Amino acid sequence: MMATRDSREMLGREDRHKDRPRVVIVGGGFGGLRLAQVLEDEPVQVTLVDRRNFHTFQPLLYQVATAMLDPAAIARSLRAILRRQANVEVRLGTVTGVDWAAKLVLLADGTPIAFDTLVLATGAVTSDYGIEGVAEHAFPLKSPEEALRLRHHVLERFERTLADPARIESGELTFSVVGGGPTGVELAGALVELIDNVVRKDFPGLDVDRAHVVLIEATDHLIDPFHPRSRENARHTLESRGVEVRLGTTVEAVTADAVHLAGGAVVPTRTLIWTAGVRANPLADRLGLDQTQGGRIVVEPDLSVPGHPDVFVIGDLAASRDLDGNLHPQMAPLAQQGADHVAAQLRRRRQGLATDRFDYRNKGVMATIGRNAAVAELPNGLRFRGRLAWVMWLALHLQRLVGYRSRFEVLTSWAWNYLTTDRTARLMVGAADEPSTRR
Amino acid sequence: MMATRDSREMLGREDRHKDRPRVVIVGGGFGGLRLAQVLEDEPVQVTLVDRRNFHTFQPLLYQVATAMLDPAAIARSLRAILRRQANVEVRLGTVTGVDWAAKLVLLADGTPIAFDTLVLATGAVTSDYGIEGVAEHAFPLKSPEEALRLRHHVLERFERTLADPARIESGELTFSVVGGGPTGVELAGALVELIDNVVRKDFPGLDVDRAHVVLIEATDHLIDPFHPRSRENARHTLESRGVEVRLGTTVEAVTADAVHLAGGAVVPTRTLIWTAGVRANPLADRLGLDQTQGGRIVVEPDLSVPGHPDVFVIGDLAASRDLDGNLHPQMAPLAQQGADHVAAQLRRRRQGLATDRFDYRNKGVMATIGRNAAVAELPNGLRFRGRLAWVMWLALHLQRLVGYRSRFEVLTSWAWNYLTTDRTARLMVGAADEPSTRR
Repeated sequence: MMATRDSREMLGREDRHKDRPRVVIVGGGFGGLRLAQVLEDEPVQVTLVDRRNFHTFQPLLYQVATAMLDPAAIARSLRAILRRQANVEVRLGTVTGVDWAAKLVLLADGTPIAFDTLVLATGAVTSDYGIEGVAEHAFPLKSPEEALRLRHHVLERFERTLADPARIESGELTFSVVGGGPTGVELAGALVELIDNVVRKDFPGLDVDRAHVVLIEATDHLIDPFHPRSRENARHTLESRGVEVRLGTTVEAVTADAVHLAGGAVVPTRTLIWTAGVRANPLADRLGLDQTQGGRIVVEPDLSVPGHPDVFVIGDLAASRDLDGNLHPQMAPLAQQGADHVAAQLRRRRQGLATDRFDYRNKGVMATIGRNAAVAELPNGLRFRGRLAWVMWLALHLQRLVGYRSRFEVLTSWAWNYLTTDRTARLMVGAADEPSTRR
Repeated sequence: MMATRDSREMLGREDRHKDRPRVVIVGGGFGGLRLAQVLEDEPVQVTLVDRRNFHTFQPLLYQVATAMLDPAAIARSLRAILRRQANVEVRLGTVTGVDWAAKLVLLADGTPIAFDTLVLATGAVTSDYGIEGVAEHAFPLKSPEEALRLRHHVLERFERTLADPARIESGELTFSVVGGGPTGVELAGALVELIDNVVRKDFPGLDVDRAHVVLIEATDHLIDPFHPRSRENARHTLESRGVEVRLGTTVEAVTADAVHLAGGAVVPTRTLIWTAGVRANPLADRLGLDQTQGGRIVVEPDLSVPGHPDVFVIGDLAASRDLDGNLHPQMAPLAQQGADHVAAQLRRRRQGLATDRFDYRNKGVMATIGRNAAVAELPNGLRFRGRLAWVMWLALHLQRLVGYRSRFEVLTSWAWNYLTTDRTARLMVGAADEPSTRR
């Protein structure tokens, strides 16, 4: 007995947990990472699989695209975040499928990972809704690479125009954003600031007043989840800062140098940023599970998969619904609350209890429109706007950023940008080796 | 008269300088950027052409590659640096040739730039000396993208080994550095630190002791510009930290999974970093000017081109020589002193004086080997090593970094790394979309 306990204690920290139930989490976004963290003190062995070695704070990608922040400020190594957690193992890999009978997750490199409980949290990808030319010509904004590519492209437009001012006529300095949700609004606001505060000083030989930001939205309002007064405030603020807001406008096709709108209007533009929609990560299509609109996986009220009680889906990938049967919105707080919920259900099952239904608690919504301007709404109906909402937005996002180091980096970058109206990150890094292949 | 002066004053700042002699500088590295800056108060209109929109502090690229710094910390927008300088215009473009008769610099996009004085400062590129496999399989380290690609590749080796430990046998964790100059020594030192301080904690399931750094150098000593005692100290320090230093060793060929050495020895390795040599930027080959070893352009003692008194060459591109006729070394201080020299010669010519010969003043050399370890030598023969030399190195590099903002960023990153022995930048950003095409 004594010898056995001693040898056990001499085993590495992974081995100590080897006989525990295995929870495999696919995806290190807001939901998957949160779940790995809240399982810290549970008697389970967790494997977190992601195809990237870092977690991305997606809500700030637009600041990377507009040269306010560098990618490292909003991304952090998963291994670094989870380093001190003994029951978590991180695996870099692309999941290609699941062997349901053998309870194995299959990776692209051929290695299987056995699970007792599987949690799918791979989120959503950009959707072009089948609109012609979007996949080829529009810029998505879902990863640090896409944000850097957009930054490079935007800065390049000013360089090109400096060399050949006649290009303005063909839309070289027209920046179009499609989608009037929070991302589109934040991006449009950040683009006019980039132009007014940075480009104007950096390119003294350029007629910067001819640069132009257009925000295109299919419905009759911006930032749908908000109260009509907040929506109106966002529209008014953007317009007062020089953004052309086109509501009730649908995109029919996108080409390399124009966007074609329903009704026949054509806007010459070489930069079209697509924030108009998402669909479930394509992995969802390969699992043989029921899906609903946008490819989201159908789940039971407790977030488990029908017929697979040991499989849960959380975040943007899950077709979870509220009590009225409406699909939940796809946003970070849903994913994080889904993670907390799944952790609680695993605990209930160990205690022999039935699982609970997942109940989303709205903690409020906010969106920033630019310097000193934002809108925020609390669940009790309180609404804020302008500088106060903006300070709330700053505080909340700093608090939510993962890892003290990147929080510190973001704080200093923001402070610098605010005090100097400068953008320190206006480097065209990462895409310069093939300029001829770029539009 | 009055009216004329008024209209002149109303012109933009570029136009005010339009009738001044035009100095075109090709290349925004240490030499070209310095020259643009020291011409600030001279009666000339300066155009600085570079194919990137930023200046790179190349001596710290190895820290980007080893996840100590992010690219933005060592790169800064040329427009930002030169923003307040009224007589400088920055042009993004790739120079493809020079029309000597018409005095035009030709850009890839077809636009010509007229010059009265031309200064070539495009520096050097990595040279493989024609050794088989280097171009395909070795990692160069001359740009932020190359540094990020190397970082991604190194971190990926540990991820792959975690998934399949048998890979260690085939050199998955063997990191080879070819070239025992300051860059190779600094890189080898930083790699063992990355492995010991970061990988060991991030990959608890991995047998990190089997990771291995090899430094291969053809001569019988490291860091050639230094005194034999400093060379010996560098070798001893590296070896005591676990680097295998192979002196007097020549590379015959490189493959995807091994380096073949003269004499028949084969070292299995999937990571070979090539710091063994440079040659002049290929632009030099297209100008019809006399070149010497490594493609460097032959210059008069005053750095002008024979037969072209209005054309100067500075920095790594110039085959400048000391009084004994030996080619100058290719390093940043040479380029910067060359810039100061050319500015002085333009002034002398305006005053009707003959040009002076360029005389390089050695202000000392230093190289860091890792935490608390460096070697430094002053021109008066004073030598420093260990922690004192390391602190000198830190102070000098911080002082030399262009732009207060990146200096601040580097300082905080270094302080964090030093105090925590952590590396904040260990993100595999920038190369993950085509993992199958990567070794």
